[in-house]
This record gives sequence, structure tokens and C-alpha cells, in this order.
Amino acid sequence: MSQVAIKDALSGRIEAGTTVTIKGWVRTRRDSKAGLSFVNVSDGSCFDPIQVVAPAELANYDSEVRHLTSGCSVSATGTLVPSQGKGQAFELQAAAIEVLGWVDDPETYPIQPKPHSMEFLREVAHLRVRTNTFGAVTRIRHCIAQAIHRFFSERGFYWVNTPIITTSDAEGAGQMFRVSTLDLANLPRDEKGRIDFREDFFGREAFLTVSGQLNVEAYCLAMSKVYTFGPTFRAENSNTTRHLAEFWMVEPEIAFADLDDDANLAEAFLKYIFKAVLDERGDDMAFFADKIEKTAIRRLESFIASPFERIDYTDAVDILAKAPRKFDFPVAWGADLQTEHERYLTEEHVGRPVVVTNYPEHIKSFYMRLNEDGRTVAAMDVLAPGIGEIIGGSQREERLDVLDARMKQFGLDASHYEWYRDLRRYGTVPHAGFGLGFERLVVYICGLGNIRDAIPYPRAPGSAEF
Amino acid sequence: MSQVAIKDALSGRIEAGTTVTIKGWVRTRRDSKAGLSFVNVSDGSCFDPIQVVAPAELANYDSEVRHLTSGCSVSATGTLVPSQGKGQAFELQAAAIEVLGWVDDPETYPIQPKPHSMEFLREVAHLRVRTNTFGAVTRIRHCIAQAIHRFFSERGFYWVNTPIITTSDAEGAGQMFRVSTLDLANLPRDEKGRIDFREDFFGREAFLTVSGQLNVEAYCLAMSKVYTFGPTFRAENSNTTRHLAEFWMVEPEIAFADLDDDANLAEAFLKYIFKAVLDERGDDMAFFADKIEKTAIRRLESFIASPFERIDYTDAVDILAKAPRKFDFPVAWGADLQTEHERYLTEEHVGRPVVVTNYPEHIKSFYMRLNEDGRTVAAMDVLAPGIGEIIGGSQREERLDVLDARMKQFGLDASHYEWYRDLRRYGTVPHAGFGLGFERLVVYICGLGNIRDAIPYPRAPGSAEF
Repeated sequence: MSQVAIKDALSGRIEAGTTVTIKGWVRTRRDSKAGLSFVNVSDGSCFDPIQVVAPAELANYDSEVRHLTSGCSVSATGTLVPSQGKGQAFELQAAAIEVLGWVDDPETYPIQPKPHSMEFLREVAHLRVRTNTFGAVTRIRHCIAQAIHRFFSERGFYWVNTPIITTSDAEGAGQMFRVSTLDLANLPRDEKGRIDFREDFFGREAFLTVSGQLNVEAYCLAMSKVYTFGPTFRAENSNTTRHLAEFWMVEPEIAFADLDDDANLAEAFLKYIFKAVLDERGDDMAFFADKIEKTAIRRLESFIASPFERIDYTDAVDILAKAPRKFDFPVAWGADLQTEHERYLTEEHVGRPVVVTNYPEHIKSFYMRLNEDGRTVAAMDVLAPGIGEIIGGSQREERLDVLDARMKQFGLDASHYEWYRDLRRYGTVPHAGFGLGFERLVVYICGLGNIRDAIPYPRAPGSAEF
Repeated sequence: MSQVAIKDALSGRIEAGTTVTIKGWVRTRRDSKAGLSFVNVSDGSCFDPIQVVAPAELANYDSEVRHLTSGCSVSATGTLVPSQGKGQAFELQAAAIEVLGWVDDPETYPIQPKPHSMEFLREVAHLRVRTNTFGAVTRIRHCIAQAIHRFFSERGFYWVNTPIITTSDAEGAGQMFRVSTLDLANLPRDEKGRIDFREDFFGREAFLTVSGQLNVEAYCLAMSKVYTFGPTFRAENSNTTRHLAEFWMVEPEIAFADLDDDANLAEAFLKYIFKAVLDERGDDMAFFADKIEKTAIRRLESFIASPFERIDYTDAVDILAKAPRKFDFPVAWGADLQTEHERYLTEEHVGRPVVVTNYPEHIKSFYMRLNEDGRTVAAMDVLAPGIGEIIGGSQREERLDVLDARMKQFGLDASHYEWYRDLRRYGTVPHAGFGLGFERLVVYICGLGNIRDAIPYPRAPGSAEF
């Protein structure tokens, strides 16, 4: 048998006694007094490295094997045998070890076999994936992403990618990044001396999208069930552990649906994702529960087992006003809920996930459906114990006259939204959707403290983004 | 039984005689002299609409049903019965039809039940998904995207998203878009009067990525098998039917692999995708074969059945030089192959897909592995009949000294690539990968003539992008 993934070698799927080759990177080497070495090798395919037992008889034992350090790449061929030691079921009795790549100056190699601070690892983003933590984050991110696509596809949703570069005006969802090919040192000017964006790449001002939602509504009103999963951008200088300038969003949109359908979809979605992670990445989750967040597994299990509570915003405000504790931010009808309020509701008052519905219209977006009371909109936030808001969504305003009035109220120029208005002029139907930040989900599942540890590359060290 | 997707109603999975509700948008209405109407309704779940038979006895038959036009949204409840007519197995005998949304001014509704030019439909991108063509494109795009994720996941690859906003210098892969939050009307200047990018969002110049490859190599050298699937950007003013400023790329990267492994992966990948489309989207492919490109199905079947031919670039040049036909572009060792050359090789010389390997080093990128001859690199292009190049890839230069020499040769500043050089200093291994444009694949599969018809939203009407 030739090269096998270490996950297959350790899983018992390959019969003991089989000759196999594994390839990967050395994590640790330990020399025994009995004249042999134990070399732990990882190839990223699963959490555990495989223990390669290297006898002194190997031709390159003294010249190479005993010089292996953390990070060296090797190819090891030998017999897969039941492990004598604790922990693993199988190990590899090496008949040959080939060193593929050495580590220049092992003393200064950043990834040593010892704990590193998360701050330090963000500085070596290209190497941090070689640690236990970031290998596990990478596999769990993959597991979540696959589960997202599977969940929607199994339910008849179609994936749509909405434009990243947009010439639409901002919808008040946040500050936008400008995208341009103009020469900043030599900006073109029009007759009045203003910057002439007709000379820019798209012939007008262009920005990075803050959300694909408005675009995806057009697809929803033809395909019935659609979703996006792609990057979105906010140019907000909020240098917190909770915000990113660039993040991936999941945005499903369903036709012939109201807020209740939307909340049901959100509940089914989160439970499906969490179950997939527990089923498929038990090794990595055990690590997070052991080293990062003790409740990591337990809270996902509890989440899956709990029916979501639904609370009207107005009732939530009453509950918070009567709460036997003090909040930093005041509680009053008409104000948005803060994280401390959200966490009180889900963690202390109810003790399981909560969907808060029907928020005051003036604190939510223009496209959310105005309720009969005229004071609230059919918006929802899903709150999860341990994090607070994890999903935000709404039924969309499908009535053109109400939409127009709302746009006026928010000071939006209806002429910029003609295509969006068309959707209400031509076969409009009730529809709803939600948005969920992918990295927020990763942070929650892995129990990470900083959202920069949920992305593959923290960018621009030393900048606001870091 | 309550609401069902039209694909389920038509598939025979629901027993005849069952009462169901379908919801969707009217495609056509035909009134019979016998005093009933046939209303074709689509919900996007499959290519075919369902025929709803509306008897005159319906309470709103005269007041509403007989006024339904293309684009109106309806909910129809009735009995699913075997169809009397040709074409479909089932139809719905309506007991009730509720009109959910009318079409304002049906005369001017852009999507009439008649053929529209593709040019016209690009002007109404928010509505064109309601046509047969773009409904089919949307479902096939979904099918391809799901198959991409499945293919890699089944083979032990992990998905990684690489940064969209990058502060790296361009690698010569193309013109880049600048990303900035600076106020163009009031640019900050440093002491020397130059634009002060320390004031920009990331504290330095930032751009949209042209490829995730360099970044994903770092992940490959820890996880062994990884892939990206996300947007990339080229600010090239090539107003052709083959190029986009914004497009999605698939970029797998494999460790412990050479160019041969890379070509094998590309072959398995394309065949898997094409088979998934034929298996899962027979309805939409039949439409494309009927209306857009006669060979659409046949050429995918033939592609799947054909082992790829491999031709060394040097041999390819010989073949082209001896070809019994004239080319517009000259053929000479050292020049890149043009589409006419590629199509001759794959369509006429071999008659099946071809992998051309080992191109002259000076026409390819600095990161491609220099072959022993010193004149060529381990690069490959996969050429497909009917389109030419569909995949480009290479084995990467894993030797630091050779990489450094290549960067010098290409005039690149090694200090900008320290992290990339680190990958060669710390446990380097042979590795390889390829890149493939998602929209190019959609164009090929659907037989589309313009790549703007492979994206959900052609942007910026009237601009260079359109």
C-alpha cells in the first residue's frame, strides 16, 4: 500500500501489519535510551499526529533522524502496528524515513512545540496553521462551510453569488470601502473641478458590498429559495475582538414566507450545523473543550436539544426592566438591545436560545416589513447563550406603497432603488431571510476570544484590522 | 398535503389524487373555448412550469384568473392528476387560485413570454432570472458549486478562504483595484507631499486580490490538501465576451505532489463536475442543447469518456508548426499559445482534452518550478474542445535558492515575500496546484457566448464591465 492520510492510518480502517507511507511535518521527536526515536508527524488530516517509531538501524538514523526538529517535513514508510503506548490505537514502525525539508535555524523557527500566545501567532499567520489550535480551526471551518452548503442544497435552495463590487449607494448598513483604479496622484476632474468618476473603471463610483441581501431578493422572487455565502465588507474602525473589516456572510432568502418561517429556518439551520460539527469533528472539539472553552461541546449539545424560545421585543423590554440585576446600558422601549441584555435573556431568563421578534421600526432597516401596529417591524434576532446575537433577519416589506414611504422616512432616494421597487411591482410575494456571520459562528463553536482567530489570515499587522 | 415544490409535484414522487398547494409565478395563460384556463406556473425549483387547470367555476375566475399575465404570483391548491396533454406527467386541477401579486402595467413588463435578446436581458438583470435561460443557468451554477465542494471534501481537502483585501504587492498577475477609505477630495499628504497611506484604513496601500494561490500555499504546507473557492479581481479594461473584472476562482493546492499529480487531479475534477451536471440537471441541459448549443450534452459526455492526452509544450509547437492550416498568430518556441492554437490541438489534432506541460520559463510566473533543462517550468494548461484553456496550473518552486533567483530575474523585491520564502525555509515539500475560473466553466457547460451571462448580475450597465 502506498501513501495514506494519517487520519486513515489512525482510524483502524487499514489493517494492522500493512505497509504504508505517510508524509507530513514533524511535531516532536523524542530519543529513547533503548536506541530508538519516537517522531510525531502531522499531515493536517486530523487532530492527532501519528507516532513514527524510528529504530537505530535506519541508514540515516544518526545522520538525519536524530537531527529532526519541529517543522521538518518527512516521508516515512513502514508497518502499521497497534500502539503500545496510551492515547493512540496505531503507530508506524518505520523501515525508512526520508527527510523532505529541513528547518533553517531550528532555534528561531516560530512554531516551537510549546504553547504560544494567540497574539504571537497572529504575527505569523502563514505558519500558525501548523499548531494544534489553528489546524483544528481550519478543519472546523471546513466542516461548517460544507454543512452550510449541504443544509441548503438538501432543502432545495440555490446558491447565488451577489456582486462584491457594487455601484449601489450604501444602504446605511455601514461604512463602505471605495474600489477604484484612478491614479490618486493625478485625479481626473470634471468641468466644475470635482473628481470625475466617469474616468474610473466602472464609469462611476464603486464600493465593496456590505450585504448581498437586496440583490438576492431578486433571485428569491424567481427561484423561491436561495442563499448566498460569500465575503462582505465594513469599513468601520471598530478595533474590537468582535468585528472584522472583511467577513463571510450566509444569507438565505425564502419566498412565500413570513417571520415565523424565517425563525424556523434559522433554528433548523443552526442545529444542523452544530450537529455536523459534533458528528464530524469530535477530535477537534475535544481539544477546544480541553484547552480553550470548557463548555464547548456541552453548549452545542444543549443548543441542539433545546427548542428556541420566542419573545416579542416589547415583552423582552419588560423582562429586562424587571430583571433582578443592573445593566450598564439603560433598558427602554425604542432602544436597541445591547449584548448584556441579549445574554441576560438567553442565558439567565430562559436558559436556551431565544428569538426576539418585532423590533421598533425606527431602529431597524427600511426594507423590513412594517407590522400592523405601525410601530414595529417584522425583524428578528436569534440570541445564543454564551455569545448573544448570532443571526439577524426579517420579513421584507413586499408592499410598494409602504416601501416607498419607508424609504422617504429614511431619507433614501427611491430613484436609486428602481430595480428593487420593480420586485414589488411585478408579482410581489411575502418573503423573508436572515444573515449570519460565518466567523462569528466559528468563534462560537470553537470558543475563541478574538474573531481574528476565526479567519485564515489576520491581515495587515499593526493596522486597525489586526 | 400542504405546499410542495413544483419539481416534487412533477416528479411522480407525490401520489396522483393528492391535494397540494403550489406557489410561483405565472409564465403563460391560455383560455380554452371550453370555459377553462391553463395557467403555467414556475417556482424555479426545476426547468418545467406546472400546468394549473383553472375551471370557470372558481369564484375569482372572471374577476382575477382570466386577468393573470406573465409574472403574476399565485398560490394554487388542487388535485395532482396525470396530465392529458403531451410533455408533462402531471398537472394541477385547481380548486382555488389566490393571486398574491399582480404585474403593474403588463404591457411594459420586461419579461414577456417570447424570446428576448441576451443583450436586452443584461439590462434587466434583476428580472432575467425569471426566464428559462437564466433559471437554468442559476440551477446549473448551483449544481457546479455543490459538486466542487463535494469533490474536494470527499478527497480530504479542506476549504480555506484567502483574503480578498490584500496589502501584498501585485505579483504580475494583472492590474489591481485599489481599496481605500481615504477622502479623495481631501487626500492626506506626508512631509514630502506624497499621498500618506498611513492614514488609509489598513495603514498602507490595499488592493483586491488577483489570486489566493500564494496564501493558500501556506495552508497546503500544513494541511496537505486545501482549496479555495471565492472571488478574485482583475482591473483589466479588456471589454471582451471572455473576461470579467470580478470572477470566482477554484484553487486547489496539494502537498507531496508534482505536475503529474496536478494533471491527474485536474482531470478527475473536471470529469466529476461534468458528470454531476449531467446526472442532476438533465432538464436544464436538454434546454441548452435544444436552444443554445447543440453539442452541449454530447461534448460533456465525450469529455467524461476521454482520457486526457498529455503533450509537452515543445512537442505542441512542433505539431502546430506542421499543422495543415494557417494561424493568425505565429507559432514559435518561446511564445505563448493563442486560443486558435489551443483549439487546434484539442479539437483537431487530438480530438479530446489535452494537457500541455512544461512551458518556457520566461512566459510563466516566478513561482513555477524550474525544470532540470533550465529553460522550462513545470506548468500546465488543460485545453478543452470548444473553448481552449480551461485550467492553468503548476508545480511550485519549493527550493529557496531557485525561488530567490527567479524573483530576482522577474524584478521582484524578495523582502515583500518573506512569509512566502519562509515556507521554503521551514519544512518545504514538493507541491502543486491549479486555478480555474468558475464562470468560464459555466460558459462551457451551458454553451453561453458571453461570460456576463454566467454571472448573476452583470454590473454597471453602460460601463466597461458590461
